[in-house]
Amino acid sequence: MSNGKSGSIDRVGAQTLRRLDALVFDAYGTLFDVHSVTALAEATFPGRGGALSQLWRTKQLEYTWLHAAMGTYVDFDAVTAAGLRYACASLGLDADEVRIAALIAQYAKLETFAEVPDALAHLRVTHHLAILSNGTPDTLRTLVTGTGLDGVFAAVISVDSLRTFKPDMRVYRLAVDRLGIARERIGFVSSNCWDAIAAKHFGFTAFWVNRQNAPLDLHGVAPDHIVRSLEDLAPFEH
Amino acid sequence: MSNGKSGSIDRVGAQTLRRLDALVFDAYGTLFDVHSVTALAEATFPGRGGALSQLWRTKQLEYTWLHAAMGTYVDFDAVTAAGLRYACASLGLDADEVRIAALIAQYAKLETFAEVPDALAHLRVTHHLAILSNGTPDTLRTLVTGTGLDGVFAAVISVDSLRTFKPDMRVYRLAVDRLGIARERIGFVSSNCWDAIAAKHFGFTAFWVNRQNAPLDLHGVAPDHIVRSLEDLAPFEH
Repeated sequence: MSNGKSGSIDRVGAQTLRRLDALVFDAYGTLFDVHSVTALAEATFPGRGGALSQLWRTKQLEYTWLHAAMGTYVDFDAVTAAGLRYACASLGLDADEVRIAALIAQYAKLETFAEVPDALAHLRVTHHLAILSNGTPDTLRTLVTGTGLDGVFAAVISVDSLRTFKPDMRVYRLAVDRLGIARERIGFVSSNCWDAIAAKHFGFTAFWVNRQNAPLDLHGVAPDHIVRSLEDLAPFEH
Repeated sequence: MSNGKSGSIDRVGAQTLRRLDALVFDAYGTLFDVHSVTALAEATFPGRGGALSQLWRTKQLEYTWLHAAMGTYVDFDAVTAAGLRYACASLGLDADEVRIAALIAQYAKLETFAEVPDALAHLRVTHHLAILSNGTPDTLRTLVTGTGLDGVFAAVISVDSLRTFKPDMRVYRLAVDRLGIARERIGFVSSNCWDAIAAKHFGFTAFWVNRQNAPLDLHGVAPDHIVRSLEDLAPFEH
Protein backbone atom coordinates (compact mmCIF):
# COMPACT_ATOMS: atom_id res chain seq x y z
CA MET A 1 0.00 0.00 0.00
CA SER A 2 1.57 3.25 -0.98
CA ASN A 3 1.88 6.19 1.34
CA GLY A 4 1.68 9.66 -0.20
CA LYS A 5 4.60 10.91 1.82
CA SER A 6 7.03 8.24 0.72
CA GLY A 7 6.44 8.85 -2.95
CA SER A 8 6.46 5.08 -3.55
CA ILE A 9 4.09 3.65 -6.12
CA ASP A 10 2.41 0.26 -5.97
CA ARG A 11 -0.76 -1.67 -6.62
CA VAL A 12 -3.72 -0.60 -4.51
CA GLY A 13 -5.08 -3.57 -2.60
CA ALA A 14 -8.62 -4.85 -2.64
CA GLN A 15 -8.96 -3.85 1.01
CA THR A 16 -8.82 -0.12 0.26
CA LEU A 17 -11.32 -0.40 -2.57
CA ARG A 18 -13.69 -2.49 -0.44
CA ARG A 19 -14.08 0.43 1.95
CA LEU A 20 -15.31 2.65 -0.89
CA ASP A 21 -18.72 2.67 -2.59
CA ALA A 22 -17.87 5.07 -5.41
CA LEU A 23 -14.85 6.14 -7.42
CA VAL A 24 -14.98 9.68 -8.75
CA PHE A 25 -12.58 10.55 -11.58
CA ASP A 26 -11.16 13.81 -12.75
CA ALA A 27 -11.56 14.05 -16.55
CA TYR A 28 -8.79 16.16 -18.14
CA GLY A 29 -5.39 14.56 -17.76
CA THR A 30 -6.80 11.63 -15.80
CA LEU A 31 -9.20 9.87 -18.19
CA PHE A 32 -8.60 12.03 -21.26
CA ASP A 33 -5.14 12.92 -22.52
CA VAL A 34 -5.02 16.70 -22.92
CA HIS A 35 -1.85 16.33 -24.93
CA SER A 36 -3.65 14.39 -27.64
CA VAL A 37 -4.04 17.86 -29.21
CA THR A 38 -0.29 17.84 -29.80
CA ALA A 39 -0.50 16.19 -33.25
CA LEU A 40 -2.81 18.88 -34.63
CA ALA A 41 -0.80 21.60 -32.87
CA GLU A 42 2.37 20.24 -34.47
CA ALA A 43 0.75 20.01 -37.90
CA THR A 44 -0.48 23.60 -37.51
CA PHE A 45 2.79 25.03 -36.13
CA PRO A 46 5.62 22.66 -37.15
CA GLY A 47 8.25 22.28 -34.46
CA ARG A 48 6.13 24.06 -31.85
CA GLY A 49 3.30 21.60 -31.19
CA GLY A 50 4.70 20.26 -27.95
CA ALA A 51 5.47 23.70 -26.54
CA LEU A 52 2.04 24.99 -27.52
CA SER A 53 0.24 22.03 -25.95
CA GLN A 54 2.20 22.44 -22.70
CA LEU A 55 1.74 26.21 -22.36
CA TRP A 56 -1.93 25.97 -23.37
CA ARG A 57 -2.57 23.50 -20.55
CA THR A 58 -0.51 25.56 -18.07
CA LYS A 59 -2.48 28.75 -18.77
CA GLN A 60 -5.81 26.91 -18.81
CA LEU A 61 -5.15 25.59 -15.30
CA GLU A 62 -3.80 28.94 -14.10
CA TYR A 63 -6.92 30.75 -15.26
CA THR A 64 -9.21 28.25 -13.49
CA TRP A 65 -7.29 28.71 -10.24
CA LEU A 66 -7.38 32.49 -10.53
CA HIS A 67 -11.11 32.50 -11.28
CA ALA A 68 -11.76 30.27 -8.27
CA ALA A 69 -9.66 32.52 -6.02
CA MET A 70 -11.17 35.78 -7.37
CA GLY A 71 -14.74 34.52 -7.25
CA THR A 72 -15.23 35.16 -10.99
CA TYR A 73 -16.38 32.70 -13.65
CA VAL A 74 -16.45 32.02 -17.35
CA ASP A 75 -17.04 28.42 -18.42
CA PHE A 76 -14.23 25.97 -19.15
CA ASP A 77 -14.67 26.20 -22.91
CA ALA A 78 -13.99 29.94 -22.64
CA VAL A 79 -11.02 29.34 -20.34
CA THR A 80 -9.63 26.79 -22.80
CA ALA A 81 -9.92 29.32 -25.64
CA ALA A 82 -8.29 32.08 -23.58
CA GLY A 83 -5.44 29.76 -22.60
CA LEU A 84 -4.85 28.86 -26.25
CA ARG A 85 -4.84 32.49 -27.38
CA TYR A 86 -2.39 33.46 -24.65
CA ALA A 87 -0.12 30.51 -25.45
CA CYS A 88 -0.03 31.41 -29.16
CA ALA A 89 0.75 35.04 -28.36
CA SER A 90 3.47 34.08 -25.90
CA LEU A 91 5.13 31.70 -28.37
CA GLY A 92 4.82 34.18 -31.24
CA LEU A 93 2.60 31.86 -33.29
CA ASP A 94 0.38 33.26 -36.02
CA ALA A 95 -2.94 32.08 -34.66
CA ASP A 96 -5.68 33.21 -37.02
CA GLU A 97 -9.29 32.45 -36.16
CA VAL A 98 -9.43 29.35 -38.40
CA ARG A 99 -6.46 27.77 -36.64
CA ILE A 100 -7.79 28.74 -33.21
CA ALA A 101 -11.19 27.21 -33.95
CA ALA A 102 -9.65 23.98 -35.25
CA LEU A 103 -7.47 23.57 -32.16
CA ILE A 104 -10.35 24.28 -29.80
CA ALA A 105 -12.53 21.76 -31.64
CA GLN A 106 -9.80 19.18 -31.14
CA TYR A 107 -10.08 19.69 -27.39
CA ALA A 108 -13.54 18.10 -27.54
CA LYS A 109 -12.02 15.05 -29.31
CA LEU A 110 -9.38 14.09 -26.75
CA GLU A 111 -8.47 10.43 -26.51
CA THR A 112 -8.52 8.39 -23.33
CA PHE A 113 -5.25 7.11 -21.96
CA ALA A 114 -4.73 3.57 -23.24
CA GLU A 115 -5.66 1.67 -20.08
CA VAL A 116 -8.78 3.68 -19.24
CA PRO A 117 -11.58 1.68 -20.98
CA ASP A 118 -10.48 -1.69 -19.58
CA ALA A 119 -9.81 -0.36 -16.10
CA LEU A 120 -13.21 1.33 -15.90
CA ALA A 121 -14.93 -1.81 -17.22
CA HIS A 122 -13.46 -3.77 -14.32
CA LEU A 123 -14.04 -1.13 -11.64
CA ARG A 124 -17.69 -0.58 -12.54
CA VAL A 125 -18.49 -4.16 -11.52
CA THR A 126 -17.83 -3.31 -7.88
CA HIS A 127 -18.17 0.49 -7.63
CA HIS A 128 -20.34 3.37 -8.70
CA LEU A 129 -18.21 5.42 -11.08
CA ALA A 130 -18.53 9.15 -11.73
CA ILE A 131 -16.69 12.04 -13.35
CA LEU A 132 -16.18 15.33 -11.48
CA SER A 133 -14.70 17.89 -13.83
CA ASN A 134 -14.08 21.55 -14.58
CA GLY A 135 -15.45 20.85 -18.08
CA THR A 136 -18.79 22.07 -19.34
CA PRO A 137 -21.70 19.57 -19.40
CA ASP A 138 -21.82 19.64 -23.21
CA THR A 139 -18.12 19.07 -23.74
CA LEU A 140 -17.98 16.32 -21.13
CA ARG A 141 -20.91 14.57 -22.85
CA THR A 142 -19.10 14.82 -26.18
CA LEU A 143 -15.91 13.40 -24.70
CA VAL A 144 -17.66 10.50 -22.94
CA THR A 145 -19.66 9.57 -26.02
CA GLY A 146 -16.75 10.06 -28.41
CA THR A 147 -14.54 7.68 -26.43
CA GLY A 148 -17.17 4.96 -26.10
CA LEU A 149 -17.66 5.44 -22.36
CA ASP A 150 -21.44 5.85 -22.54
CA GLY A 151 -23.17 4.02 -19.74
CA VAL A 152 -20.00 3.60 -17.67
CA PHE A 153 -20.67 6.46 -15.28
CA ALA A 154 -23.47 6.80 -12.74
CA ALA A 155 -22.98 10.58 -12.97
CA VAL A 156 -20.98 13.04 -15.06
CA ILE A 157 -20.72 16.08 -12.81
CA SER A 158 -19.61 19.50 -14.03
CA VAL A 159 -18.58 22.46 -11.89
CA ASP A 160 -20.66 24.65 -14.18
CA SER A 161 -23.76 24.73 -11.96
CA LEU A 162 -21.61 26.18 -9.16
CA ARG A 163 -19.88 28.72 -11.41
CA THR A 164 -16.48 28.05 -9.89
CA PHE A 165 -13.59 25.66 -10.47
CA LYS A 166 -11.49 23.17 -8.56
CA PRO A 167 -10.03 23.32 -5.96
CA ASP A 168 -12.94 25.26 -4.42
CA MET A 169 -14.22 22.87 -1.75
CA ARG A 170 -17.80 23.28 -2.99
CA VAL A 171 -16.83 21.35 -6.12
CA TYR A 172 -15.90 18.22 -4.16
CA ARG A 173 -19.05 18.55 -2.05
CA LEU A 174 -21.05 18.50 -5.29
CA ALA A 175 -20.03 14.87 -5.84
CA VAL A 176 -21.29 13.90 -2.37
CA ASP A 177 -24.60 15.66 -3.02
CA ARG A 178 -25.09 14.24 -6.50
CA LEU A 179 -24.12 10.66 -5.63
CA GLY A 180 -25.82 10.62 -2.22
CA ILE A 181 -22.79 8.82 -0.80
CA ALA A 182 -20.81 9.98 2.25
CA ARG A 183 -17.38 11.41 1.55
CA GLU A 184 -15.77 8.68 3.65
CA ARG A 185 -17.04 6.10 1.13
CA ILE A 186 -15.80 7.95 -1.94
CA GLY A 187 -12.43 7.51 -3.62
CA PHE A 188 -11.27 10.41 -5.79
CA VAL A 189 -8.86 9.73 -8.64
CA SER A 190 -6.84 12.45 -10.37
CA SER A 191 -3.63 12.77 -12.35
CA ASN A 192 -3.41 16.37 -11.15
CA CYS A 193 -1.60 16.23 -7.83
CA TRP A 194 -3.15 19.49 -6.57
CA ASP A 195 -6.62 18.08 -7.35
CA ALA A 196 -5.92 14.89 -5.39
CA ILE A 197 -4.58 17.02 -2.52
CA ALA A 198 -7.73 19.17 -2.49
CA ALA A 199 -9.94 16.06 -2.57
CA LYS A 200 -8.02 14.62 0.38
CA HIS A 201 -8.42 17.92 2.22
CA PHE A 202 -12.17 17.68 1.61
CA GLY A 203 -12.29 14.18 3.08
CA PHE A 204 -12.20 11.79 0.14
CA THR A 205 -9.76 8.91 -0.09
CA ALA A 206 -7.46 10.40 -2.71
CA PHE A 207 -5.55 8.55 -5.42
CA TRP A 208 -2.95 10.49 -7.37
CA VAL A 209 -2.29 8.95 -10.78
CA ASN A 210 1.31 10.01 -11.22
CA ARG A 211 1.60 9.27 -14.93
CA GLN A 212 4.79 11.28 -15.41
CA ASN A 213 6.74 10.30 -12.32
CA ALA A 214 6.54 13.87 -11.00
CA PRO A 215 7.51 14.92 -7.48
CA LEU A 216 4.72 15.10 -4.92
CA ASP A 217 3.36 18.62 -4.56
CA LEU A 218 4.16 20.05 -1.13
CA HIS A 219 0.87 21.79 -0.76
CA GLY A 220 -1.13 20.77 2.29
CA VAL A 221 -1.99 17.13 2.92
CA ALA A 222 -0.68 14.29 0.76
CA PRO A 223 -2.91 12.00 -1.33
CA ASP A 224 -3.63 8.63 0.32
CA HIS A 225 -2.26 6.59 -2.58
CA ILE A 226 -0.01 7.18 -5.55
CA VAL A 227 -0.51 4.94 -8.58
CA ARG A 228 1.06 4.93 -12.05
CA SER A 229 -2.10 4.46 -14.05
CA LEU A 230 -5.67 3.29 -13.58
CA GLU A 231 -4.41 -0.26 -14.01
CA ASP A 232 -3.00 -0.03 -10.51
CA LEU A 233 -6.49 0.67 -9.23
CA ALA A 234 -8.24 -2.14 -11.04
CA PRO A 235 -8.44 -5.25 -8.86
CA PHE A 236 -7.20 -7.69 -11.49
CA GLU A 237 -3.93 -9.09 -12.76
CA HIS A 238 -2.58 -8.89 -16.29
CA MET B 1 -2.35 57.08 -22.48
CA SER B 2 -2.17 53.36 -22.89
CA ASN B 3 -5.20 51.16 -23.11
CA GLY B 4 -4.94 47.69 -21.61
CA LYS B 5 -6.64 46.08 -24.57
CA SER B 6 -4.25 47.46 -27.16
CA GLY B 7 -1.18 46.19 -25.39
CA SER B 8 0.59 49.45 -26.18
CA ILE B 9 2.98 50.90 -23.64
CA ASP B 10 3.54 54.57 -22.97
CA ARG B 11 4.10 57.21 -20.32
CA VAL B 12 1.22 57.65 -17.89
CA GLY B 13 0.11 61.25 -17.88
CA ALA B 14 -0.22 63.54 -14.91
CA GLN B 15 -3.99 63.61 -15.42
CA THR B 16 -4.45 59.96 -14.45
CA LEU B 17 -2.26 60.32 -11.39
CA ARG B 18 -4.04 63.50 -10.29
CA ARG B 19 -7.28 61.53 -9.91
CA LEU B 20 -5.58 59.20 -7.42
CA ASP B 21 -4.72 59.82 -3.76
CA ALA B 22 -2.71 56.69 -3.17
CA LEU B 23 -0.55 54.27 -5.12
CA VAL B 24 -0.45 50.74 -3.77
CA PHE B 25 2.38 48.50 -4.96
CA ASP B 26 2.74 44.78 -5.16
CA ALA B 27 6.10 43.76 -3.66
CA TYR B 28 7.48 40.57 -5.24
CA GLY B 29 8.33 41.06 -8.88
CA THR B 30 7.15 44.67 -8.85
CA LEU B 31 9.42 46.47 -6.35
CA PHE B 32 11.71 43.54 -5.50
CA ASP B 33 13.31 41.33 -8.13
CA VAL B 34 12.53 37.73 -7.20
CA HIS B 35 15.17 36.57 -9.63
CA SER B 36 17.90 38.28 -7.66
CA VAL B 37 18.20 34.83 -6.03
CA THR B 38 19.54 33.51 -9.34
CA ALA B 39 23.19 34.27 -8.55
CA LEU B 40 23.16 32.19 -5.38
CA ALA B 41 21.09 29.49 -7.09
CA GLU B 42 23.67 29.35 -9.89
CA ALA B 43 26.58 29.25 -7.45
CA THR B 44 24.84 26.44 -5.56
CA PHE B 45 23.79 24.44 -8.64
CA PRO B 46 26.06 25.47 -11.54
CA GLY B 47 24.22 25.63 -14.85
CA ARG B 48 20.81 25.29 -13.19
CA GLY B 49 20.38 28.60 -11.36
CA GLY B 50 18.08 30.18 -13.91
CA ALA B 51 15.86 27.11 -14.21
CA LEU B 52 15.65 26.78 -10.44
CA SER B 53 14.77 30.44 -9.94
CA GLN B 54 12.01 30.23 -12.60
CA LEU B 55 10.41 27.02 -11.35
CA TRP B 56 10.67 28.13 -7.72
CA ARG B 57 8.71 31.28 -8.53
CA THR B 58 6.18 29.35 -10.66
CA LYS B 59 5.41 26.87 -7.88
CA GLN B 60 5.36 29.60 -5.22
CA LEU B 61 2.64 31.46 -7.15
CA GLU B 62 0.75 28.26 -7.95
CA TYR B 63 0.64 27.30 -4.27
CA THR B 64 -0.69 30.73 -3.26
CA TRP B 65 -3.48 30.50 -5.87
CA LEU B 66 -4.40 26.99 -4.79
CA HIS B 67 -4.47 27.96 -1.11
CA ALA B 68 -6.70 30.94 -1.91
CA ALA B 69 -9.07 28.75 -3.96
CA MET B 70 -9.14 25.90 -1.39
CA GLY B 71 -9.57 28.21 1.58
CA THR B 72 -6.42 26.89 3.28
CA TYR B 73 -3.42 28.86 4.50
CA VAL B 74 0.20 28.62 5.46
CA ASP B 75 2.20 31.83 5.45
CA PHE B 76 4.22 33.04 2.46
CA ASP B 77 7.55 32.06 4.01
CA ALA B 78 6.25 28.47 4.21
CA VAL B 79 4.92 28.65 0.64
CA THR B 80 8.30 29.95 -0.54
CA ALA B 81 10.08 27.05 1.16
CA ALA B 82 7.63 24.50 -0.30
CA GLY B 83 8.04 25.95 -3.78
CA LEU B 84 11.84 25.71 -3.49
CA ARG B 85 11.74 22.11 -2.29
CA TYR B 86 9.40 21.12 -5.11
CA ALA B 87 11.54 22.90 -7.70
CA CYS B 88 14.71 21.16 -6.49
CA ALA B 89 12.97 17.76 -6.57
CA SER B 90 11.57 18.40 -10.02
CA LEU B 91 14.95 19.45 -11.42
CA GLY B 92 16.76 16.58 -9.71
CA LEU B 93 18.95 18.91 -7.63
CA ASP B 94 20.57 17.66 -4.45
CA ALA B 95 18.99 20.11 -2.04
CA ASP B 96 20.28 19.37 1.44
CA GLU B 97 18.99 21.40 4.37
CA VAL B 98 22.00 23.74 4.40
CA ARG B 99 21.48 24.70 0.75
CA ILE B 100 17.71 25.07 1.21
CA ALA B 101 18.19 27.34 4.22
CA ALA B 102 20.72 29.51 2.39
CA LEU B 103 18.44 29.96 -0.62
CA ILE B 104 15.42 30.79 1.54
CA ALA B 105 17.49 33.34 3.49
CA GLN B 106 18.38 34.96 0.16
CA TYR B 107 14.69 35.49 -0.52
CA ALA B 108 14.62 38.01 2.35
CA LYS B 109 17.52 39.88 0.72
CA LEU B 110 16.01 40.57 -2.69
CA GLU B 111 17.12 43.70 -4.50
CA THR B 112 14.80 46.35 -5.86
CA PHE B 113 14.59 46.85 -9.60
CA ALA B 114 17.01 49.62 -10.58
CA GLU B 115 14.48 52.43 -11.08
CA VAL B 116 12.43 51.76 -7.94
CA PRO B 117 14.10 54.04 -5.33
CA ASP B 118 14.10 57.15 -7.56
CA ALA B 119 10.58 56.55 -8.87
CA LEU B 120 9.17 56.13 -5.36
CA ALA B 121 11.02 59.22 -4.15
CA HIS B 122 9.25 61.26 -6.83
CA LEU B 123 5.81 59.66 -6.43
CA ARG B 124 5.72 60.08 -2.65
CA VAL B 125 5.74 63.86 -3.05
CA THR B 126 2.24 63.77 -4.52
CA HIS B 127 0.74 60.44 -3.35
CA HIS B 128 0.37 58.22 -0.34
CA LEU B 129 2.38 55.11 -1.13
CA ALA B 130 1.74 51.62 0.25
CA ILE B 131 2.71 47.99 -0.27
CA LEU B 132 0.05 45.26 -0.49
CA SER B 133 1.74 41.88 -0.58
CA ASN B 134 1.40 38.14 -0.05
CA GLY B 135 4.58 38.37 2.06
CA THR B 136 4.69 38.00 5.82
CA PRO B 137 4.93 41.19 7.91
CA ASP B 138 8.42 40.24 9.15
CA THR B 139 9.85 39.48 5.73
CA LEU B 140 8.32 42.60 4.20
CA ARG B 141 9.86 44.69 6.98
CA THR B 142 13.24 43.09 6.33
CA LEU B 143 12.97 43.77 2.59
CA VAL B 144 11.89 47.39 3.01
CA THR B 145 14.63 48.13 5.53
CA GLY B 146 17.29 46.20 3.63
CA THR B 147 16.65 48.16 0.44
CA GLY B 148 16.68 51.57 2.12
CA LEU B 149 12.95 52.18 1.60
CA ASP B 150 12.20 52.95 5.28
CA GLY B 151 9.82 55.85 5.62
CA VAL B 152 8.69 55.76 1.99
CA PHE B 153 5.43 53.91 2.61
CA ALA B 154 2.40 55.06 4.57
CA ALA B 155 1.53 51.40 5.10
CA VAL B 156 3.11 48.02 4.44
CA ILE B 157 0.11 45.69 4.28
CA SER B 158 0.40 41.91 4.42
CA VAL B 159 -2.30 39.36 3.57
CA ASP B 160 -1.27 37.47 6.69
CA SER B 161 -4.01 38.91 8.93
CA LEU B 162 -6.63 37.57 6.49
CA ARG B 163 -4.95 34.16 6.15
CA THR B 164 -5.46 34.06 2.40
CA PHE B 165 -3.58 35.21 -0.70
CA LYS B 166 -4.15 37.32 -3.78
CA PRO B 167 -6.30 37.34 -5.86
CA ASP B 168 -8.94 36.84 -3.13
CA MET B 169 -10.92 40.08 -3.29
CA ARG B 170 -10.65 40.53 0.49
CA VAL B 171 -6.94 41.24 0.01
CA TYR B 172 -7.57 44.29 -2.16
CA ARG B 173 -10.29 45.48 0.22
CA LEU B 174 -7.68 45.39 3.01
CA ALA B 175 -5.82 48.25 1.34
CA VAL B 176 -8.99 50.38 1.28
CA ASP B 177 -9.61 49.66 4.96
CA ARG B 178 -6.04 50.27 6.06
CA LEU B 179 -5.52 53.46 4.07
CA GLY B 180 -9.02 54.86 4.65
CA ILE B 181 -9.15 55.90 0.99
CA ALA B 182 -11.95 54.97 -1.44
CA ARG B 183 -11.05 52.39 -4.08
CA GLU B 184 -11.78 54.91 -6.85
CA ARG B 185 -8.91 57.06 -5.55
CA ILE B 186 -6.38 54.22 -5.37
CA GLY B 187 -4.00 53.16 -8.12
CA PHE B 188 -2.67 49.62 -7.88
CA VAL B 189 0.67 48.78 -9.46
CA SER B 190 1.85 45.25 -10.17
CA SER B 191 4.24 43.48 -12.52
CA ASN B 192 2.05 40.40 -12.20
CA CYS B 193 -0.62 40.77 -14.87
CA TRP B 194 -3.13 38.55 -13.00
CA ASP B 195 -2.67 40.74 -9.89
CA ALA B 196 -3.35 43.93 -11.87
CA ILE B 197 -6.41 42.26 -13.43
CA ALA B 198 -7.75 41.27 -10.01
CA ALA B 199 -7.15 44.79 -8.69
CA LYS B 200 -9.04 46.23 -11.67
CA HIS B 201 -11.86 43.76 -11.02
CA PHE B 202 -11.98 45.02 -7.42
CA GLY B 203 -12.26 48.61 -8.57
CA PHE B 204 -8.78 50.09 -8.39
CA THR B 205 -7.16 51.90 -11.29
CA ALA B 206 -4.75 49.18 -12.32
CA PHE B 207 -1.26 49.61 -13.75
CA TRP B 208 0.48 46.55 -15.13
CA VAL B 209 4.26 46.94 -15.14
CA ASN B 210 5.08 44.72 -18.09
CA ARG B 211 8.81 44.41 -17.46
CA GLN B 212 9.28 41.43 -19.78
CA ASN B 213 7.14 42.46 -22.73
CA ALA B 214 4.76 39.56 -22.05
CA PRO B 215 1.35 39.16 -23.71
CA LEU B 216 -1.65 40.49 -21.83
CA ASP B 217 -3.36 37.76 -19.80
CA LEU B 218 -6.83 37.05 -21.19
CA HIS B 219 -8.40 36.57 -17.84
CA GLY B 220 -11.31 38.87 -17.11
CA VAL B 221 -10.92 42.63 -17.38
CA ALA B 222 -7.77 44.30 -18.65
CA PRO B 223 -5.57 46.61 -16.55
CA ASP B 224 -6.19 50.32 -17.17
CA HIS B 225 -2.59 51.05 -18.10
CA ILE B 226 0.45 49.10 -19.19
CA VAL B 227 3.86 50.56 -18.39
CA ARG B 228 7.39 49.25 -18.86
CA SER B 229 8.76 50.20 -15.46
CA LEU B 230 7.96 52.50 -12.56
CA GLU B 231 9.74 55.26 -14.47
CA ASP B 232 6.69 55.44 -16.72
CA LEU B 233 4.57 56.22 -13.67
CA ALA B 234 6.77 58.92 -12.20
CA PRO B 235 5.74 62.36 -13.42
CA PHE B 236 9.21 63.58 -14.33
CA GLU B 237 11.55 63.56 -17.29
CA HIS B 238 15.03 62.06 -17.42
